[in-house]
Amino acid sequence: MPTTAELIERRARLLGPSYRLFYDEPLHLVRGAGVWLHDAAGRRYLDAYNNVACVGHAHPQVVEAIARQAATLNTHTRYLHEGVLDYAERLLATLPPELGHAVFTCTGSEANDLALRIARTHTGGRGVIITRFAYHGVTAILAEASPSLGRYVQLGDAVRTVPAPDGDDLHAEELGRRFADGVRSAIADLHAAGLQPAALLVDTVFSSDGIFTGPRGFLQPAVDAIHEAGGLFIADEVQPGFARTGEAFWGFARHGVVPDIVTMGKPMGNGHPVAGLAVRPEVMAAFGRQCRYFNTFGGNPVSMAAASAVLDVIQGQALQANALAVGGHLVTSLRQLGEKHALIGQVRGAGLFVGVELVTDRARRTPATAEATRVVNGLREAGVLLSATGEAGHILKLRPPLVFERQHADLLVQTLDEVLRRL
Amino acid sequence: MPTTAELIERRARLLGPSYRLFYDEPLHLVRGAGVWLHDAAGRRYLDAYNNVACVGHAHPQVVEAIARQAATLNTHTRYLHEGVLDYAERLLATLPPELGHAVFTCTGSEANDLALRIARTHTGGRGVIITRFAYHGVTAILAEASPSLGRYVQLGDAVRTVPAPDGDDLHAEELGRRFADGVRSAIADLHAAGLQPAALLVDTVFSSDGIFTGPRGFLQPAVDAIHEAGGLFIADEVQPGFARTGEAFWGFARHGVVPDIVTMGKPMGNGHPVAGLAVRPEVMAAFGRQCRYFNTFGGNPVSMAAASAVLDVIQGQALQANALAVGGHLVTSLRQLGEKHALIGQVRGAGLFVGVELVTDRARRTPATAEATRVVNGLREAGVLLSATGEAGHILKLRPPLVFERQHADLLVQTLDEVLRRL
Repeated sequence: MPTTAELIERRARLLGPSYRLFYDEPLHLVRGAGVWLHDAAGRRYLDAYNNVACVGHAHPQVVEAIARQAATLNTHTRYLHEGVLDYAERLLATLPPELGHAVFTCTGSEANDLALRIARTHTGGRGVIITRFAYHGVTAILAEASPSLGRYVQLGDAVRTVPAPDGDDLHAEELGRRFADGVRSAIADLHAAGLQPAALLVDTVFSSDGIFTGPRGFLQPAVDAIHEAGGLFIADEVQPGFARTGEAFWGFARHGVVPDIVTMGKPMGNGHPVAGLAVRPEVMAAFGRQCRYFNTFGGNPVSMAAASAVLDVIQGQALQANALAVGGHLVTSLRQLGEKHALIGQVRGAGLFVGVELVTDRARRTPATAEATRVVNGLREAGVLLSATGEAGHILKLRPPLVFERQHADLLVQTLDEVLRRL
Repeated sequence: MPTTAELIERRARLLGPSYRLFYDEPLHLVRGAGVWLHDAAGRRYLDAYNNVACVGHAHPQVVEAIARQAATLNTHTRYLHEGVLDYAERLLATLPPELGHAVFTCTGSEANDLALRIARTHTGGRGVIITRFAYHGVTAILAEASPSLGRYVQLGDAVRTVPAPDGDDLHAEELGRRFADGVRSAIADLHAAGLQPAALLVDTVFSSDGIFTGPRGFLQPAVDAIHEAGGLFIADEVQPGFARTGEAFWGFARHGVVPDIVTMGKPMGNGHPVAGLAVRPEVMAAFGRQCRYFNTFGGNPVSMAAASAVLDVIQGQALQANALAVGGHLVTSLRQLGEKHALIGQVRGAGLFVGVELVTDRARRTPATAEATRVVNGLREAGVLLSATGEAGHILKLRPPLVFERQHADLLVQTLDEVLRRL
């Protein structure tokens, strides 16, 4: 078995400098099952991070669906196939009826990129409004709308940022007003530059900004603001979507709003590369009239079989209810842990999307950035995987597979307790 | 079983207006094996079009590799995994040694989009030079560099086009000079607009332009021209790559040039969504220093297992030699058929990438556009699948799985003979 150092050297040589690894001591994983990941030395880790494997690592039902369809036929959407139609029907049934069409891609980046193309065609505007530390993808236009990628990526000339809705302790009306004020200010700034807004594009749990699940309902005034200015509201559900937030199947639905476009990806195929968007027919009309969209692998029979099996498991095993129950228990337990550890600040979340702020001063919410790095690495040493998020990197990001149980939440909290005590 | 009309209606309702179908009477496919596709009524079709299923539809070795790895572990490249390293090593071994790093994506569009980001970072220029009817992908910046998508897509302000290298009957020196003249003219035009060239980006068989496989070697002067101007040469191998051209494993290698970046996709996973690029380390350095590139599904263990199995089959079954032999036989047979049918103009190709020009006047090479549509639909009725390409849509595009045998080529030519006689 190669050593970690050998693998890292080989990786740098073959894959080059754009690749990054997690942890001071990177993990060499070889096997996964349910909420557990196993390294090459045979050690197992509780996965509290990987939302992609939403129904659990290597879920046999998804594996079987992929294998069966791959052995039968894998083509593309220029031939008729019932798989893509059956899945589109099931997917659209989870969404508000206004969102009548589904378009399939392979990645969330492709979905967000296409959403911006559609929004620009429909509105005639180019302006895009995002949150200050947003992440929306890695294509050229999305990198320019993803400040969380770092300072080297310049924002696009038609991109404006607004402060994230940091106000878990506020009333929805107050936080909604503040967030909408930011959007109105960004619209005015676009207008001042001679630009029309095409869209407000937000991740509805604001994951890279620091996980702001806020009080339910705070998004409506911002949606109203972008609509008044002739722009669209695009809900980036690549992270919150597919039952994770517990309170709803989609993150936006917690807020009672109906987006013009909903983009999705990561958990959709439990790791199989499948993604897409849902869109109001009237918003899709101009793009569809002028423009074909053909994605060679998008919506292929195998991807649709994988995605369909994932829906089967989420719905059949009531994983949305599980996310709500276990996520609620997790938040309660973490808040209790905060009574023992002054480093723990706000604990916020919806379902199994939870953020734990680490602060050196609770009143001032001073980011404990260095401590967060040590906690993340300490947890990895102690056998629990998670990461940190937010502009200062001081917010623990908990986003486990949806099959996470109460006992797993307890193990996580207990291990965090030990790591914090040893810090 | 639903009727074709019912499926078409359901499709329009669920998937909306951006989706297109092949053929006047669209195909409802349910099963595939080797070079054969089967429709819902039990009829089989000879597949002379689908390059994605390069080792044959539903190849058991690829299916088995996908199923085995999916049942074991599917994660991402922020953990160490030998699968991505082993595959990168094998892939890079098929390329010139100058191309030292591999970066993985899920689609050819993502690979080309990333290649442009890398080229722009390395050169500091923005200009992109493409052929007049190029197709490079569906992200926002690639659609603006894909005139074959249609007139509604405006070329990007930094995109310039050059005439495709239409000169199968010329010497390589003469065609090379003409093509390079176009590139120099485009560079001058960029300079005149105050822009620096970042890259010359070409599909090395010029598929959407009309399949210009030309005499081997004609690309070198154009590559020299872009290098002299400080730009990069990006070989878009999404269609020609992976042994298809028979004479070499990569389309550019037929021309004896070494690209700065090579992008790849379609056949890489025999339908599994996997793609990527290979790049000179010195070209990747600036991007990698400034910028991480993380593609959630890109280079995951299952995608790498699929891609690795495809390489096993291509190499183990000597499919490059097969493409050369069967492709050569196919071109000879089609040229012989041209002696019977005046509609057949130039027949050109490399390996199993073949174009058959249909013309109403051979001397003037007048495009027989309407006839080409009737031939494509006539062949579909007669049980052979192919398509048409080129700006006038008058060039039959033959691009079968690489396991296409002499008997399949004969069946294709015989069926084309019958369709042309009945036209």
